[in-house]
Amino acid sequence: MKRIIAKYYIETPFDPEKAALILAGEQSSGTFVSVPGETEDLKRRFAARVESVHLLGSVSQPAIPSPKFTSERYQRAYIEISWSIENFGYNLPVLISTLQGNLYELSQFTGLKLLDIQFPTAYVAHFEGPRFGVAGSRASTKVDGRPLIGTIIKPSIGMSPSDSAKLVKTLVEAGIDFIKDDELQSAAANSKLEDRVDAIMRVINTHADKTGKKVMYAFNISDELDSMLSRYDYIVRAGGTCAMLSINSIGLAGVKKICDQGALVIHGHRNGWGMLNRHPLLGIEFTAYQKLWRLAGVDQLHVNGIQNKFWESDDSVVQSIEACLTPLFSRETLLPVVSSGQWGGQAFETYRRTKTIDLLYMAGGGIMAHPKGPGGGVVALQQAWEGAVKGLSMEEAVRLYPEFAQSVQKFGQQ
Amino acid sequence: MKRIIAKYYIETPFDPEKAALILAGEQSSGTFVSVPGETEDLKRRFAARVESVHLLGSVSQPAIPSPKFTSERYQRAYIEISWSIENFGYNLPVLISTLQGNLYELSQFTGLKLLDIQFPTAYVAHFEGPRFGVAGSRASTKVDGRPLIGTIIKPSIGMSPSDSAKLVKTLVEAGIDFIKDDELQSAAANSKLEDRVDAIMRVINTHADKTGKKVMYAFNISDELDSMLSRYDYIVRAGGTCAMLSINSIGLAGVKKICDQGALVIHGHRNGWGMLNRHPLLGIEFTAYQKLWRLAGVDQLHVNGIQNKFWESDDSVVQSIEACLTPLFSRETLLPVVSSGQWGGQAFETYRRTKTIDLLYMAGGGIMAHPKGPGGGVVALQQAWEGAVKGLSMEEAVRLYPEFAQSVQKFGQQ
Repeated sequence: MKRIIAKYYIETPFDPEKAALILAGEQSSGTFVSVPGETEDLKRRFAARVESVHLLGSVSQPAIPSPKFTSERYQRAYIEISWSIENFGYNLPVLISTLQGNLYELSQFTGLKLLDIQFPTAYVAHFEGPRFGVAGSRASTKVDGRPLIGTIIKPSIGMSPSDSAKLVKTLVEAGIDFIKDDELQSAAANSKLEDRVDAIMRVINTHADKTGKKVMYAFNISDELDSMLSRYDYIVRAGGTCAMLSINSIGLAGVKKICDQGALVIHGHRNGWGMLNRHPLLGIEFTAYQKLWRLAGVDQLHVNGIQNKFWESDDSVVQSIEACLTPLFSRETLLPVVSSGQWGGQAFETYRRTKTIDLLYMAGGGIMAHPKGPGGGVVALQQAWEGAVKGLSMEEAVRLYPEFAQSVQKFGQQ
Repeated sequence: MKRIIAKYYIETPFDPEKAALILAGEQSSGTFVSVPGETEDLKRRFAARVESVHLLGSVSQPAIPSPKFTSERYQRAYIEISWSIENFGYNLPVLISTLQGNLYELSQFTGLKLLDIQFPTAYVAHFEGPRFGVAGSRASTKVDGRPLIGTIIKPSIGMSPSDSAKLVKTLVEAGIDFIKDDELQSAAANSKLEDRVDAIMRVINTHADKTGKKVMYAFNISDELDSMLSRYDYIVRAGGTCAMLSINSIGLAGVKKICDQGALVIHGHRNGWGMLNRHPLLGIEFTAYQKLWRLAGVDQLHVNGIQNKFWESDDSVVQSIEACLTPLFSRETLLPVVSSGQWGGQAFETYRRTKTIDLLYMAGGGIMAHPKGPGGGVVALQQAWEGAVKGLSMEEAVRLYPEFAQSVQKFGQQ
């Protein structure tokens, strides 16, 4: 019998073994309530199973305040629970309701975080997954041997389509590989998406006709379903190659429907992620999270960046990059999108820790505010990565690459 | 200019006024970064505004561990931020990315919870909202003057369609108003939804033909979008009146698309809610949450129950019931679904605190395990509510109503 295994980090005022059994019961056939019709055969077939309980230390204060159950000690543990795939079939929303549903309500837990999910190969094989991923994103932008270099249109919201197109012209001429809308930019009154697509794709197509390189632009089509579908088609007709989705705000069913269209690279923006992950003992870890969105078909997913401006630690970012690039099934892996305060200086530490160039590396001010202009900014980022991959120190790279040296002088002290 | 106002509960190691300004900047035009093209006019039009900062006390330990920023004191406050509706138009995913997006990542906060959202009347009027809500659910089941009494098919998963239909027959003959699938029951190998609809609607339609009362059955159609749409149609064709959606697992775009079909009452199951709400200083409060799902069109929404088996306090449940029943716009209000460990005994406290009968009141064992069988269980629940509305104490109700007295004897000591 093929089973899906979920690993949780828990905290409980009770015996962790018993708490794990209660979780398994609540999230399957209801093992602890005796009701007519619940035969031994049904239990064997559909009951969730506790696979392991690995005790960690205990603490005197609960991770999440829980006035209903107070205790002198709260025990922490890793637990693994498994379900037969017969319980949910190839139904991702029901999978999520099973692995991330009512269990967070159980008063037996003062902390509960979903760390990872293991799927049987046959289960994963049912899903298309990312149609483009790393290889498709590279093929579309003709970038080899280094990360894709990207940037975002700023200000986040308020620019008119023609202002945006002017900026895009500067950026594509500077040699950029990828540009994206902001997650807040999708429906602003002064920038209809269709007008933005027209103005921007005119620039990108002209550049592609001249140079043979089509810059990838991630238009934020996040909206209701019918609107997303018609915007998607609009981008395809205009010769665009990518659409951006705010995956948490749209939700799984909507995101999968868009991914299933199959014509555009899907850039997954994880805004809202802090709410799901920021507490060490509540929510879901990125390792589990990115697997769900890969099953839905997302091609590129945000992972924050080394030395970022947000709350997340470098260790966590490194782990996220590795998670995206770990094969989930025989098809494409997920392209990690590195962003937040990046200017090239972080390339060295990013490469030292991840040993990969399969990244979409996003910089904002590091490109736009470069002393030699955006052209110098893009070159500086390419140089930073070349130096990082060669194993140079940042100081050695400064001596070798003049544009990168200017970046260090301008952004290195901030 | 029409503005949407969001109220947050925050904790910060910084000055709360400054932290609020940073949040407003991050979630609109990026006020704190000077970039070419960001004119004063654009700022005035699209910048988010800090409307108020109400200081609360301070604490010495952060609500959420934040190793990057440590401090001796962490200040708590209520803050209100507003955006022009021009920023997002009538686009709910972008609204969510704005109100619940990257702001949770800001290292300036060691706690952040969205408490409430105020919409301009004209904004809300754009949306259909719940097509059925309280009045539509009553009309469909012909229940007046008391809460709708409902139950759930148990075991949660594993029963065959014919087993389920047998149980449904017992329940409709017992006088039940509403029955629902479990949130884990949608795609199990031994109970195809279409087969379950056939078997169950045969029973419900036969009963309706005989008695004139059509019991509402909430079939869990949660799945990918195309599957949900075809299952929805299948229910309509079979004469069903309701579909259940695991709203967090499906997501907003998918749920709205289903609600927009307009033919079935939509029963919103909030499994996964604990992850979004359980920490006092992270995520979203129910008051804000239910408004978003009303805009999407959900008719019935789970609110837990008084003296529930989960972690939630009675105060929180009472607040949730009131939130659902507070008019959001001129159309239907949302029917609160009260469940979790209910057997009738809680009717008294529920009515005393909420003074409403506009509820879908769900009981499991309290109906199925009643000494006089399910028929006695349903009558006992109706009696409990009659007594509660009359202002009787539970003891007085026991003297007046024999079936309710048996409930108290059986379930009152647990």
